[in-house]
Amino acid sequence: MNLKERNMNVNINAVSDSEVGLAGTNQESSSLTETLFGADTLSIRQRVEASRSTFLNSTDATDDMPIENIRDKFMALDIPSQGSNVDAYLDKLDQDVLPHCSHLASPRYMGHMTSPIPSFLPEIGRLVQTLNQNVVKMETSRSLTFLERQVIGMLHREIFRFDHEFYQSHLQSISEALGIFTSGGTLANIGALWTAWRRAQDRHPAQMQQSVGTLNKPVIIGSELLHYSFDKGAHLLGAHLHKVPVNDRFQIDLDALREAIEQFRQAGQPIICIVAIAGTTDYGSVDDLRAICELAHDVEAHVHVDAAWGGGLILSERNRSLLDGIELADTVTIDGHKQLMLPLGCGLLFFRDPTFSQATVHHAPYAVRATSYDQGRFTLEGSRPVNALYLHAALHIIGKQGYDDLYTESLGRARYMAQAIDARAEFELIAPPSMNILAYRYIPQAYRGKPLDEQDNNHISQFNIALQKAQRQKGDSFVSRTFRPIKRYQNQSLALLRAVLLNPLTKHDDIDFLLNDQIQIARSLEAAG
Amino acid sequence: MNLKERNMNVNINAVSDSEVGLAGTNQESSSLTETLFGADTLSIRQRVEASRSTFLNSTDATDDMPIENIRDKFMALDIPSQGSNVDAYLDKLDQDVLPHCSHLASPRYMGHMTSPIPSFLPEIGRLVQTLNQNVVKMETSRSLTFLERQVIGMLHREIFRFDHEFYQSHLQSISEALGIFTSGGTLANIGALWTAWRRAQDRHPAQMQQSVGTLNKPVIIGSELLHYSFDKGAHLLGAHLHKVPVNDRFQIDLDALREAIEQFRQAGQPIICIVAIAGTTDYGSVDDLRAICELAHDVEAHVHVDAAWGGGLILSERNRSLLDGIELADTVTIDGHKQLMLPLGCGLLFFRDPTFSQATVHHAPYAVRATSYDQGRFTLEGSRPVNALYLHAALHIIGKQGYDDLYTESLGRARYMAQAIDARAEFELIAPPSMNILAYRYIPQAYRGKPLDEQDNNHISQFNIALQKAQRQKGDSFVSRTFRPIKRYQNQSLALLRAVLLNPLTKHDDIDFLLNDQIQIARSLEAAG
Repeated sequence: MNLKERNMNVNINAVSDSEVGLAGTNQESSSLTETLFGADTLSIRQRVEASRSTFLNSTDATDDMPIENIRDKFMALDIPSQGSNVDAYLDKLDQDVLPHCSHLASPRYMGHMTSPIPSFLPEIGRLVQTLNQNVVKMETSRSLTFLERQVIGMLHREIFRFDHEFYQSHLQSISEALGIFTSGGTLANIGALWTAWRRAQDRHPAQMQQSVGTLNKPVIIGSELLHYSFDKGAHLLGAHLHKVPVNDRFQIDLDALREAIEQFRQAGQPIICIVAIAGTTDYGSVDDLRAICELAHDVEAHVHVDAAWGGGLILSERNRSLLDGIELADTVTIDGHKQLMLPLGCGLLFFRDPTFSQATVHHAPYAVRATSYDQGRFTLEGSRPVNALYLHAALHIIGKQGYDDLYTESLGRARYMAQAIDARAEFELIAPPSMNILAYRYIPQAYRGKPLDEQDNNHISQFNIALQKAQRQKGDSFVSRTFRPIKRYQNQSLALLRAVLLNPLTKHDDIDFLLNDQIQIARSLEAAG
Repeated sequence: MNLKERNMNVNINAVSDSEVGLAGTNQESSSLTETLFGADTLSIRQRVEASRSTFLNSTDATDDMPIENIRDKFMALDIPSQGSNVDAYLDKLDQDVLPHCSHLASPRYMGHMTSPIPSFLPEIGRLVQTLNQNVVKMETSRSLTFLERQVIGMLHREIFRFDHEFYQSHLQSISEALGIFTSGGTLANIGALWTAWRRAQDRHPAQMQQSVGTLNKPVIIGSELLHYSFDKGAHLLGAHLHKVPVNDRFQIDLDALREAIEQFRQAGQPIICIVAIAGTTDYGSVDDLRAICELAHDVEAHVHVDAAWGGGLILSERNRSLLDGIELADTVTIDGHKQLMLPLGCGLLFFRDPTFSQATVHHAPYAVRATSYDQGRFTLEGSRPVNALYLHAALHIIGKQGYDDLYTESLGRARYMAQAIDARAEFELIAPPSMNILAYRYIPQAYRGKPLDEQDNNHISQFNIALQKAQRQKGDSFVSRTFRPIKRYQNQSLALLRAVLLNPLTKHDDIDFLLNDQIQIARSLEAAG
């Protein structure tokens, strides 16, 4: 008997069960069960499709309702006693929620590491959610556990390029993993630090014992542009996070890194991890991965490459040289929901040496057993959806050539924008794109064509913050902003406009529109004084 | 111009851009973009619907292909150069993947904390993925940030029941949070420990300073049935996890807890957190929440209730008394993807006092700013999908009365199964259901009706492990197993069969079928010797 037949047998007061007879429990299942599990979802699908189209057809980056007014729509706390029907619920979403979300799919939204996701993926999503497999253990996932391991192996090979025998023996090994799926780059980075910490304890137990909890804590080193997930991870582990300045191309300064390493070694403070960044959040800049990995190996420190942003380029024949040296890393983070254009929730951590996966293993008696294929042993997280299916689908449907095309176009778009900024006297390009992110600022008329002192720069920063906020509120186009020290201005911290050129639907016209929109808004601000 | 119009303007070799002219980048976007973002998904939807139906219409708990044979289907590592079309990809899934996943929706799958999810949720999922809002920051989520905070507030009020003024001032406050969404209960529990650790550092800085990194590490106390997320969290933080035995109802032994507390206090070892469980993974048992919270308050320790499994019952008027005392906790974990029947990825951590949310705050300059509504400040994770929408939809469409009905039926089903086990001489009921989980074992003929010594019990455990594996392989019905010390057998560890009665589609007939299936399999095993 299948689910549909079962449901046809359910009546409102269902089967009375004389065997149990406890008050309130003598009913096997109610009419609600039929509504929730038996209904054909065709009408819901069509209804949702209408909501989706409204969102996808918008070119505005946001609506222009003030944020406080949106907030005031979300103050009610009553959970309804009687449920409503799905149509009524979707009407409510259409009215109060969807008009006020961020239009991340708009070709004129160039502000964050987002893009519309390929249209087949939400359909794969329906399948992921219907199956609702839990990859924490074999008994709740079976084939999907192997699929997850397979797709991790596919990317592992693109990064590390070991030989056929290596993958034959490790890909589906019970006792170790080539990598893990995480809910995002933050957990992948924290997983890397945790692994590094355990490896240091295994390799230098006495030194670690003397260091933990003292003022000479174990150290993690990376550039000042490290993602804040490393602050969180260092904080959790009780490590000291040491940040080294960057050079004028926003890469870690290698001399400063060498000095820092030497200093900590002389102080007897264990260096548990050195982090290289492949695609900084602010600028998309890529550290010298090869040099950093070699340095780390020299001092026997774990080396991690945070390629959350840049890692997807490993699939691009024309652009993978940007990641030169990544194959020397001990661990690598890639976010599938960034350049691979998957839905949010697709973080990945790769282990060059699969035995590293054993550093953080935990078991549980009711499942997640040592002698099984249970993946929960290797992850900080427990129950997890099989988001690997999005990656699997995208690799098969887009293909390497497809990703190569998408990246090449995306990088071309960033170069176009850099030139368009340079060509306009109103702007100063601060960070030319080393990938598909760039930073710039608007220079108000009064400051153009003259040397800028600290006070000038502070005024200009205030102006750019106001400009970004006004543009965001107007809602026709969008870039984000950051605040960072800039070498050419004696390391003064400046407010910068930050553009991310990931969206494949963004055309040169949209870039011109955005820059002209900013000029227009800036002029109004200047005119208003 | 909307997306569809835009795409109609895209030709295979698109607009040539003489302004840029770099090799390989003089193309704004390719035909691929059209395929990926412009295609109407109706045909894909229909195709996916067929795959979904096959899965939903199965009553088998699993297929019967040996696991090694499934594994061998997932050894290929080549990422195709040219992408395939979606139909061909889905054909491949239908052939190699879907037949070999776990049929968690089957009414005869009673093994883990899973159920089919209500059919409107995968449709809401399409919307979640199309919007792809990132709740880490306002600029990528706007209204959905407020919606997430609202729905957290709704459950917070069900747990803690503060007054109207409390929620008016805290619900949408910039500087603090009533709770956070996480990828699952593990991260919620780790978040609670992290908060407890920071609170201890704030309240007892000298004692913490003397303790961290020494043999007298800060302590976390809970019962021996603590979820293994606490092992992970203690390990990450460098805390000592102390496990106290349970009584014969599988609740923490309060005398043993008092003794442990006294012992650590005398040793000067700081107790940073006491954990109570509302729904153990093995048995569904609920600790005496009120007594534990009062004890913790007496010794100024943070008290956390892990209600990952049981927390959903807060919505059930008829059953919420099972959670009596939960309102005294400092922090509470609930998993939306367990009893609330949401898709995986819906963990929740609640703070009784919203200032606790500030203990672990982190910022970043490019976003996640202190003066914004950016939720990323409060979470260990970074980028996150708006899974809050599943909870929001379920609360509105199912309603409190609906959840009350579903839980009452589910608890009734567990009592029915306990009686059905008791009524069969072949089984011994080890843990009667305090909620909707129970544990039992099969007693082979030769051991029935006589006192069992240690060796007998070891034989019986081996037999039950073999039985569970054979049943899993046969695939017609499914329970899981665990391995725990049992008081009535002088704390000998026994292999136990574990049934989870969450699926609303499971009928008494299915329960009888499962028990009879086990008896039949067991007899074959006995006959085979």
